Amino acid sequence: MTTTPFLLPPQRKPAIYVTDTSTQTLNAHTSELDRAHVFHSWSAQAALKPLVIAGGLGCRVWDHDGRTYLDFSSQLVNVNIGHQHPAVVKAITEQAALLTTIAPSTANLTRGEAARRITDRAPAGFNKVFFTNGGADANENAIRMARLYTGRDKVLSLYKSYHGNTGAAIVATGDWRRIPNEYSRGHVHFFGPFLYRSEFWATSEAEECARALHHLERVIQSEGVASIAAILLESIPGTAGIMMPPTGYLPGVRALCDKYGIMLILDEVMCGFGRTGHWFAFQAYDVVPDLITFAKGVNSGYVPTGGVIISDTIAATFDETVFPGGLTYSGHPLAMASIVGALDAMEAEGIVENAARIGRDVLEPGLKALQAKHPIIGEVRGVGVFWVLELVADPATREPVSAAVMARVKAELLGRGLLPFLMENRIHVVPPCVVTDAEVAEALAIYDEVLSLDLLS
Amino acid sequence: MTTTPFLLPPQRKPAIYVTDTSTQTLNAHTSELDRAHVFHSWSAQAALKPLVIAGGLGCRVWDHDGRTYLDFSSQLVNVNIGHQHPAVVKAITEQAALLTTIAPSTANLTRGEAARRITDRAPAGFNKVFFTNGGADANENAIRMARLYTGRDKVLSLYKSYHGNTGAAIVATGDWRRIPNEYSRGHVHFFGPFLYRSEFWATSEAEECARALHHLERVIQSEGVASIAAILLESIPGTAGIMMPPTGYLPGVRALCDKYGIMLILDEVMCGFGRTGHWFAFQAYDVVPDLITFAKGVNSGYVPTGGVIISDTIAATFDETVFPGGLTYSGHPLAMASIVGALDAMEAEGIVENAARIGRDVLEPGLKALQAKHPIIGEVRGVGVFWVLELVADPATREPVSAAVMARVKAELLGRGLLPFLMENRIHVVPPCVVTDAEVAEALAIYDEVLSLDLLS
Repeated sequence: MTTTPFLLPPQRKPAIYVTDTSTQTLNAHTSELDRAHVFHSWSAQAALKPLVIAGGLGCRVWDHDGRTYLDFSSQLVNVNIGHQHPAVVKAITEQAALLTTIAPSTANLTRGEAARRITDRAPAGFNKVFFTNGGADANENAIRMARLYTGRDKVLSLYKSYHGNTGAAIVATGDWRRIPNEYSRGHVHFFGPFLYRSEFWATSEAEECARALHHLERVIQSEGVASIAAILLESIPGTAGIMMPPTGYLPGVRALCDKYGIMLILDEVMCGFGRTGHWFAFQAYDVVPDLITFAKGVNSGYVPTGGVIISDTIAATFDETVFPGGLTYSGHPLAMASIVGALDAMEAEGIVENAARIGRDVLEPGLKALQAKHPIIGEVRGVGVFWVLELVADPATREPVSAAVMARVKAELLGRGLLPFLMENRIHVVPPCVVTDAEVAEALAIYDEVLSLDLLS
Repeated sequence: MTTTPFLLPPQRKPAIYVTDTSTQTLNAHTSELDRAHVFHSWSAQAALKPLVIAGGLGCRVWDHDGRTYLDFSSQLVNVNIGHQHPAVVKAITEQAALLTTIAPSTANLTRGEAARRITDRAPAGFNKVFFTNGGADANENAIRMARLYTGRDKVLSLYKSYHGNTGAAIVATGDWRRIPNEYSRGHVHFFGPFLYRSEFWATSEAEECARALHHLERVIQSEGVASIAAILLESIPGTAGIMMPPTGYLPGVRALCDKYGIMLILDEVMCGFGRTGHWFAFQAYDVVPDLITFAKGVNSGYVPTGGVIISDTIAATFDETVFPGGLTYSGHPLAMASIVGALDAMEAEGIVENAARIGRDVLEPGLKALQAKHPIIGEVRGVGVFWVLELVADPATREPVSAAVMARVKAELLGRGLLPFLMENRIHVVPPCVVTDAEVAEALAIYDEVLSLDLLS
């Protein structure tokens, strides 16, 4: 990777609005406005004390007082290219001067260039992109395509999964967020392979894989083959715990799909576009899906966007038949420019290769060394810049640590200047793909220090 | 309104990517890329020939060859502030240099400033905003809040409506786009007031209003009061035909909601933020909803965004209880900057007032003069810059003109340099809120010329 000239930030003030801050700091003013007017995702609102973030560059973010954090969350695992990459900011700025928005029914050069860059990286036989605003509606539209292509209703997905917050996407989701939102028919959940906490009483990866495939086939048969439109899977489940599929699992799912005429949708929203050291996570496995959904890493979230990469067979279904889906901001020019800027920079600077190298040579050995030192780390899993530390109260029983322990871990990491991604009993180690050896060393030292505390007492 | 210095455009080439166009024009290259790689909304793909649009300013857009169109569509009725308003472009550019994206769990100054500007314009008792990526997921989240607040499932909405393309939003939608997507329970549709094509055998606005309310109450009673979470209505149904509700209708719906403990969600995605000459369309009626959804006009779609404005009562439900909804780009800084820029400019330049004045003094008399001249115009309806011409084959039977007539109308308008918004048998006259008297005169002359053709033979 060539070195991007990320210098440490000047403290800049936003100039676009005038706020009277004579009586309080910008941090205090920001917090006050937030608590008064902003309703936050996935939270009870009363007790929230959101961290103020004013700016960022590369793997660092900072508040208005100049307190800086090393971002090992990539926010919601989306800033693959790091914060404020100059090439992406430039692309956005130049497109903003030209044309910010245009209806999806038009043809727009930037949209075509973005679509071509995406299909160029997809497998052969994937030539069209339907753009959405994010990952949720990417999955919504992939589900729609699979249902209309097959004429079937049900969608099978994992209990340990997250596919988005809208009507169909949230019911395709397996985790707790589905349950208060379960107002749609036709979604069925099953168990995936995860040897560390096997649902199948397996004792090896090969056995876990075979039994998970057997379980899936029994679910398919029991639900009724003729009712199943699609199997929707994150290529590597992300928020649910970065559970690396055994080598044969995705090819085995593909074989079941072929056997029963079911469409395979691979959700690459979190794991795609460099996160695993590949353009698509599934490219490390011997599998080709029917539909690919993406968001986050495609432009690092610099402008909201996402989409579905459509196999030629499914795309052809809608040559003469109206596709009954759409949205005002499909193929939004500003978002398209950010895709062009991000993908070109990732290519030119070897950012995907950097993610692969950091994973192989720095993160894997570093995290495994932490595991050897700290019995609280029950398992280390991952690839590229997509890793997880599973924290357990007891290595023998694998009992997860409590929410109180995780709250302490969060406070201790933040206190040492590391912005973490924590979920249940896990630390997700998910820095931007541009992370350097030195930044990883800095983060490993902070994890080490915090895990050395007497957390379980 | 102060005059915005919109000059006619220089022909600018995008600089962010290098394309070899030595053998074809940029228009041809754009079309070729589009046809090869872009999958379009709500369409059969094979026969599409999308219009190339490269840039825009104010009420004009143009292609790469310099062919210019007067935009009386506002694209998808979203560029309320016109194309490329310099204040919004500046806000985007400045925020892009500072921080494009940050997780929703943080507090961000631009997000707080945007939320405050929105709640400042909402009725008393609306103090919090949940930001989404657009109108569909705004409605998704309003439905979620209403269901969780009431503990009920069903959502009632109009047959003549459109609420978005995601799982719950598309099933809340009433028009044809719902039918191939109907995989969710709990959505019930009813008929709204529309005297010109009354479902209630009414002969006056007052009778239509009373009968529509009676019909709604009978649907409520017949579905079972205890199962109904919300009534979801566009304050003025947009894509469905800009059917102005009779004066008493929305207050009547509010009274039914109060009587039966049902939440009233008003969808202001298309009609809000200036379109009707008010900040919110419902402000012209004696009604206050429980939840307000918005997108489009809030920032003219310069960056994808939308949201729910939440009444204090409903917001309080989630003080101690987790709100089970969220998305990566909720409160996206770049989108938030565009809201701040757009709302401040609309205020400073009197753009909402301009929409009101143009509607009252220019569009209404102009369109009614066209109706007096052309019997093909069955009805003229609207307010502000939100008007519709209903084209009929026979004024007596009100039979809609055919799709072939509408295709000819489209071609003739485009050929004369007017970019129209057409839907079924209707011309929606929906220019940006910044439209000038001279631009309206220019458009009226083009409509007049086209409607003078022998369209029905």
